[in-house]
Formats: sequence, structure tokens, C-alpha cells
Amino acid sequence: MNSKDKIRVAVAGPRGRMGSETIHMVTNAPDLQLVAAIDHKHEEIAFPDIPVYTDIDACFSTEQIDVLIDFTNPQAGKMNLQKAINYGIRPVIGTSGFSNDEVIDYRKQMEQKKLGGIIAPNFAIGAVLVMKFSQMAAKYFPDAEIIELHHDQKKDAPSGTAIKTAELMAKTRGAKKQGAPDEKETIQGARGADFDGMRIHSVRLPGLIAHQEVLFGGKGELLTLRHDSMDRASFMHGVHYAVKTAMNLETLVYGLENILD
Amino acid sequence: MNSKDKIRVAVAGPRGRMGSETIHMVTNAPDLQLVAAIDHKHEEIAFPDIPVYTDIDACFSTEQIDVLIDFTNPQAGKMNLQKAINYGIRPVIGTSGFSNDEVIDYRKQMEQKKLGGIIAPNFAIGAVLVMKFSQMAAKYFPDAEIIELHHDQKKDAPSGTAIKTAELMAKTRGAKKQGAPDEKETIQGARGADFDGMRIHSVRLPGLIAHQEVLFGGKGELLTLRHDSMDRASFMHGVHYAVKTAMNLETLVYGLENILD
Amino acid sequence: MNSKDKIRVAVAGPRGRMGSETIHMVTNAPDLQLVAAIDHKHEEIAFPDIPVYTDIDACFSTEQIDVLIDFTNPQAGKMNLQKAINYGIRPVIGTSGFSNDEVIDYRKQMEQKKLGGIIAPNFAIGAVLVMKFSQMAAKYFPDAEIIELHHDQKKDAPSGTAIKTAELMAKTRGAKKQGAPDEKETIQGARGADFDGMRIHSVRLPGLIAHQEVLFGGKGELLTLRHDSMDRASFMHGVHYAVKTAMNLETLVYGLENILD
Amino acid sequence: MNSKDKIRVAVAGPRGRMGSETIHMVTNAPDLQLVAAIDHKHEEIAFPDIPVYTDIDACFSTEQIDVLIDFTNPQAGKMNLQKAINYGIRPVIGTSGFSNDEVIDYRKQMEQKKLGGIIAPNFAIGAVLVMKFSQMAAKYFPDAEIIELHHDQKKDAPSGTAIKTAELMAKTRGAKKQGAPDEKETIQGARGADFDGMRIHSVRLPGLIAHQEVLFGGKGELLTLRHDSMDRASFMHGVHYAVKTAMNLETLVYGLENILD
Repeated sequence: MNSKDKIRVAVAGPRGRMGSETIHMVTNAPDLQLVAAIDHKHEEIAFPDIPVYTDIDACFSTEQIDVLIDFTNPQAGKMNLQKAINYGIRPVIGTSGFSNDEVIDYRKQMEQKKLGGIIAPNFAIGAVLVMKFSQMAAKYFPDAEIIELHHDQKKDAPSGTAIKTAELMAKTRGAKKQGAPDEKETIQGARGADFDGMRIHSVRLPGLIAHQEVLFGGKGELLTLRHDSMDRASFMHGVHYAVKTAMNLETLVYGLENILD
Repeated sequence: MNSKDKIRVAVAGPRGRMGSETIHMVTNAPDLQLVAAIDHKHEEIAFPDIPVYTDIDACFSTEQIDVLIDFTNPQAGKMNLQKAINYGIRPVIGTSGFSNDEVIDYRKQMEQKKLGGIIAPNFAIGAVLVMKFSQMAAKYFPDAEIIELHHDQKKDAPSGTAIKTAELMAKTRGAKKQGAPDEKETIQGARGADFDGMRIHSVRLPGLIAHQEVLFGGKGELLTLRHDSMDRASFMHGVHYAVKTAMNLETLVYGLENILD
Repeated sequence: MNSKDKIRVAVAGPRGRMGSETIHMVTNAPDLQLVAAIDHKHEEIAFPDIPVYTDIDACFSTEQIDVLIDFTNPQAGKMNLQKAINYGIRPVIGTSGFSNDEVIDYRKQMEQKKLGGIIAPNFAIGAVLVMKFSQMAAKYFPDAEIIELHHDQKKDAPSGTAIKTAELMAKTRGAKKQGAPDEKETIQGARGADFDGMRIHSVRLPGLIAHQEVLFGGKGELLTLRHDSMDRASFMHGVHYAVKTAMNLETLVYGLENILD
Repeated sequence: MNSKDKIRVAVAGPRGRMGSETIHMVTNAPDLQLVAAIDHKHEEIAFPDIPVYTDIDACFSTEQIDVLIDFTNPQAGKMNLQKAINYGIRPVIGTSGFSNDEVIDYRKQMEQKKLGGIIAPNFAIGAVLVMKFSQMAAKYFPDAEIIELHHDQKKDAPSGTAIKTAELMAKTRGAKKQGAPDEKETIQGARGADFDGMRIHSVRLPGLIAHQEVLFGGKGELLTLRHDSMDRASFMHGVHYAVKTAMNLETLVYGLENILD
């Protein structure tokens, strides 16, 4: 691709786990060009070929940037988002912590400028598709259970993704208590966590990474949706897709699921 | 439900495998009422409580019918569909063999009468959702393989459902030859059937019934969509849904996937 | 096979669910010959081609029988077993309720007569193999969880098979508390039932029949053993195998797993 | 563990992929002590805390060694094995290329010296257990198919592990042509590779690592054995187990499966 046609990207938070994957992805994508990194401290040696800025205004006023990718933290993410809007740069934000009101306010500013952008707490396209499909399927199959499987160092159960999936399913499914009306646990916990009548089971074993399976049962049939996440690199597929999509939007979209069709 | 509010249903082909399941389903559904059966020969004893007609005109002019469910054969199905349109009865047709032109013609007639109806070669909601989701996912995951698993008396491989699924995926995926460019089969057939660069694998074993798994691979992640069909009863979920949906349509829809959202 | 070389079988409890499957299996097996049924009431019409006895002594003294298959109930099963030993007939008993001491006593009698026989609470070879393999694997993979999945009318959780499997695994595994030491359930029950530090999860959905999956995790790898039971007919594979094996034993074996190698 | 009670280990080929994992494993195992490395060139800096020898005789005559772990190459592996026997050191050899006659000859020497040792082409305990269990299950379930799934850079199909598994199954299964007698591929290759009447299917997708599933079908039931290998680290479980087992053997065993019970 001619370098003039590439999307010009700046990355904020380039030394974090997601940020460094992003640097790697942008550098290798044939349709993207990495033009700057924004870091709260300047370590030139880490990115020998691109300018690193500690001052975001200096960066945005010096470089010609189409898209800002931000994997910093909730506080810095909001500041960087506002700066991007001010400079007419399209934001792709991977930090969480945005309230509904904040999203509405940023969206209003961006629509006035016809500026596209995306905030997404989860960039794993496969995981987001499983959530989206689960929400669709729950309309037809109200009997559903979730099995999520993770490495045995994970502390919380169920996983955040399982709870988010169950919340989305609850929107189309309506509350229903599943199982036999008189079912009985002979060992406590066998039937898993109860979420609105659905059951969630958390498996923790060495060798596992991050997996989720949603089972839907109907008379004589079973529908299963599964996502296996083996590597953080999988998020980059979604980040790349968000950058390209932001170029064609004239508003702010919250959630990767809303740009997948 | 008050019997006045129930949807009044006639069933054509009531003694076939799908037809007899339909009789059973309609009889047990609280929101449906079975009012007549249409059969090419009269065997009253099989349906002691409902009138059985060999003449469809006699049936449609005598009984008050909202929906005709037809599981006969391609030839009878078309005749019955036309009769239903003539009498202003909503058709739900499970036979195959309709050409594109025929569907367009019936649809035109039905739209003039603001009459809803559905023709569907496959009423298994779970199987149809897997096809629909596969088509959506193939846009983001062009690397995909299908494994379909059936009982060992099945003669053709791959299954019709697998081929239909691959066709739908090809619409969003575009052709791509998968696997290593220099991959080599040391035993012929190991890599399965090649469909537009995708691979389809057919497993045949006693104990299996009818199962399909679609695998999508991306860097560091895997998305799996699976349907297990254990019993023909599973089709009735879709027939019931189609009957209810036909009441709210003012056109003819082809394919269950187009009334699932 | 020449009828003289066939194994001559009598079936006790021929009208029960397992008994009637057994009648069907023995009738169709080329190496077995059904010679009599033993029933507490005489319903000749059900088995038109074979004599039905209400008196087991009359049956055993009249007919020439190699093997008695018994699917009655714990009380009748013990009486029938003793009668079979008295008459030198090899017993294959599918009822439960035998104490250790009773098994030892019957075995002693049978070894004196060099008479082979089998008592098995579970004749599903696939399910028994999963138990056997799980016990073997637990020695090398102490981190294991069980997911058992059944239809949504099942009342008890976990299933008896899951508990039996966990008991067998505990013999080779030793107690170990799995998961992160500080793991925390944000919804109670997420981590399933605790059996000696292993976790058991019970899924209940319409469409499911009877399924069990045992997962073993090690650093960088996962071993999964799964059994799907779709139909009671699957037990007949094990009954047939037990009948043939009983002909070559000179003792009483308890548990199908002990005649599988 | 008291350092006197630890098993004293030397590693040959310490800079290779398996060798460097082995160095890591031995260093971290509480019951093993790394006492030397044997390398064809001396790079002290790589193993700062242990002596590195380029001359195996110098190593074996200088250091007190219980077990030699060798991950070199077929030629060096044989020389190192013979040297280990000469010095009364127990060999654990991970290279392939040994003929039957060679194994018999080495075994004879070792039995005379009552020296234990193991040669294994595959140290993944989970994978070896799946092979072992598959061989056991094939006796009762002659209808079986193998699905092996690997990353899309793998060139050969089916995988070596799948072929090895099929060979082991053939020993207990006997030849049987599976599927419907008149089955027909409408797209060539759908039914996979034919191995003695069994079918093997090779899936290749990005995101996959190394996985194998063996399906056994019987009337009304299905048995599935699966191994997922995510990381080379999984081999170390087997190497560690082999080292401990070698200490209690007085002969040479070929194949990890023969020391698993």
C-alpha cells in the first residue's frame, strides 16, 4: 500500500502489555503507519524508529495523526480522548471506567465534528461474537448454561466475561428458573452459580488459558458457542478492525459488538 | 389461553414423519388449535378428534383456518400453497423444490393480499442459527473448517447442511486457500473436502445422530459453533415459531434464517 | 453359528426396561440363544416363542441353561444368584445392593464349583472405560474437574456416575485442593461441588441425555475423557460382553471394569 | 529435600529447545539436582552455575551422576547412551532413530548391569495416555475416527501422533471398513484419510496449537478421548517422571506408555 493511503496511528501507553502488542501490530499491518508514541516518561530506546512524546499536545500539534489508540488507564484514557476530540483525531480507546453520561457527552462532541471513534472494554472479536450470538440465541433457547474455563491462578469466579454474557442473554431471554423444579444438590455447589435462573460453572485447571462455552438446550437439540483465547495477540485483530471502522464513522460507538454485523 | 385467541391450524400430510410430529406439536401447544387435517386418503381412525379432508377446497371452504402447515411433497406443496393464497390462509410450507421465480410469484400474490407466510427447507432453529452465525463470523475469521458428524448409515458426505453452511460462509468470506502453502497429505483425504479453500470433514460412527461443528481460527484464538440434533422433535420448535411469525407478516419469507433476528 | 455352539441364556425380569432390552439383544445376537424367561407373573403373550417360568427351580431343572441374566431387583437378584450357583448356571447380575461380605461369600461358593459370573451395577462399557481411564490418569494429573450434563428432569446433582468416578480417581490421586489458594466466588456455587478438592459441575438442559466429561490439567496441556450416552441400548454391549466373559471365568467378578483390560 | 537424597542429573544438548526446557525443569524440581551439562561447544555464560563439558568421558569420570537426560540427535544420542551404560549411569533418551535390534542390544547390556533407563520418542504424558487409552478402547469399540487439529503452518497430514495412535489401535481393533457400505463422497476427501478402515481427519487453522481427538462410536453411545497440547513445557512432566522411574528399573524400557500404568 502506498504510504500516503495508510492510516496514520499514534499509540498512548506503548509500554504496557496491550500497548506493546499494539505497537507490534501497527508496525506490521500493511494498511497502518505508526507515526508516534505517547508515554508519560520518555524512553527513546524502546521505540528507536518513532518519536516518543510525553506531552500529548506537542504530539498532536506536531504530527499528522488519523487515529489515536489508547491503552493507558481510566484517568489518562479520558484526558487523551478529550484531547483527541479537540484536535480532530479519531480515538480508539481500550480502557474501561467510562460512565454512560460521559459516553453520551463525548459522542455529542464527536457528532458535531463528524468524528468517528470507538471505546471498547474488550477487543477480542471471537469473545465478543460469542456474547453477541449468545444474546441472539437466548431469544429462541431460554434454557442455557455457561461453562467458563481458566488457568488455576485466576481468583474470581465466575469470570467477568461470563457475567457480561449472562447479562446480555438476560435482555432477550427473560428470567426463567431452569432445571427440575425439585432438583437437589447432594454436594453443595454442583449446579453452579445462579444468574437469573441460568447457571454458570467455573473450571480452573493448569493448562487452561481462557475459554468460554455457552450451551443452549431445546427439545431434541443442543446449540453450543465456544471461544478459546490462547494468547493476548488475539485482541489485535479487534483493535485493527476498530481503527479501520473508526475512519468510516461520524460518531462514537461504545462496545466492539456494535461495529460487528 | 381462551380458545378464541388461539391460532387455528390445518395440517396437510398428517401421516408422514414430519406431519405426525406436527399434529402432536399443534395438539399440545397452548396457543394453537388443530382444526383439520388434509390427507390424500381418509383414515379417520388416526385422528379421532378432528375432521380429515381429502379435498382441500372442501376443507378451506368449510373450516375457519388461520394457518396451513404443509409437510407433503414438492408437487402437492405447491398446489396447497396456491390454494391457501386463494382462500386467504397463511401458509407455512416445509417442502423443498421451489424455484426462485416461483417464490417471487407467490410472494407477489401474497403481498397484494397482505398475507404472511413462510417456506423453509429446514425448521431446526439451532441448525439454522449455526448457519446464520457462521455466515456472520466468516467475515471476521476467513480461516474456517467444518466438521460434520452423522450416524454410520448416512450415504452422502459432506452433509447437505455442511454444504449449505459453507455456501453461506462463502458470501461473507471470499475465497481463500487455507493451510500451509506447501502442505502435503501423506494419506489421501486427510485434509478433507475442499470447498472454496475451506475444508469439510465428515465423521460417520454408530452412536452419532446429526451434529455439526464450525471452527474459526484467528491469531491466538478459536471460535467454535456447534449444533447437536438428537431427535426430529427439534424441528417443531421452528414450525411453532414460523406459525406465530406468519400471523404478523404481510409477505412470503423464504428460509427460517430470515425470520430469526 | 451352529445352534449347538451358542451360549444358552435365561433372562429374569424380562418385562422391565433393562430386561426387555436384554430379551431383544439376546434374540438378535448370533452367538446367544434365548431359552427361557423367568417372571414373577406369567404373561405368555409377551414372549410367544420361549417358555416363561414363574418358578425358578422349575426353569433351572427343566431347561439347559449356560447363563442367567438378571435385571430384577436387589432382593430377587440375590435369591436368583444363589439358585444359579446351586444349579451350576453362570450368573450375570445387573442389580445393585450387594454388600462386600455377600460378594465374598458368593465368590467362595463359585470358586469351589469353578463357576464364572459377573455382578455389575453399570453395564455401559463406554462409561465404565471413562471411569477406569480417569482413575489411571489421575495418578499423573492430580488437577482434575468433572462436568456431567443431563436432561433437565434429573433431580440429583452431581450424578451417581460423577461421584463414582471421583471416588475412583481419589484412590490414585490423593487429596489436593485445586484452584488458586485465594480464589473467591462472587456468585455462590460457581466453582461447583467440592469432592476431596476436585470440583464437579452439573449441567441440566432439555436436549441433553446423559453425558460426562473429565478434564485433567497439567502445565501446558489438557487431557479430556468424555462419554455420551444417548440410548439405553448402549448397555447391551456390556451385557453381551459379560455373558461371553462369564463362560471363561472360574470366579465371580464384581464390576464391569474388572473384566475390561 | 536434603541435597544428598536428590537424584543427580546431567543434561546433554542443553541449548536445544527440549534441552533448555529440561535445564529449566531440573533446576526447579525439588527432588532433582543439576550437576553438569554436556555440549559440543562450551558456552559457559549460558549455564553460569554448573560445569559444562564438551568431552562426555571427562564429565562422567569427574562428576557423580545418577541419570543422563539426552535431547541431542539420533547419532549423538546413541553414543551418549553407550557411554552412560559404560559408566553405570541411567539414561533417559528423548531422541528417535533407534532400531529394534539396537534397543535389544542396549537392553541386554543394561540388564547385565541391573541398570534402569528409558528411551522415548514422546514425553507428553497426556498424549501418550490418549494413545494408550485408545488402544484399550479400540478392543471394545472397533468403530473409531481420529480428528487431529494443528496450527496452519504444519505441512504433513495426518500428524505423526495420529498415525502412531491408529497403529496402536489397529493392534486391538483388527481391520474393519467403517461407514455405510455404499457411502459416497460428493466432494473428494470428505471422509478423510483411510487407515485400515478407520478415518483420520486433519484440521489446520491459525489459533490452533496441537490437539487430537479420538472418537469411538457404539450403539447409543460415544466415547471421546482428547489431548490439547498448548506448550512444549508439557513434555517436562514426562521427563521428570521418566527420571524418577529409571531409578527403580533394572532394564531399558522403550516408550513412555510402558512405564505408565
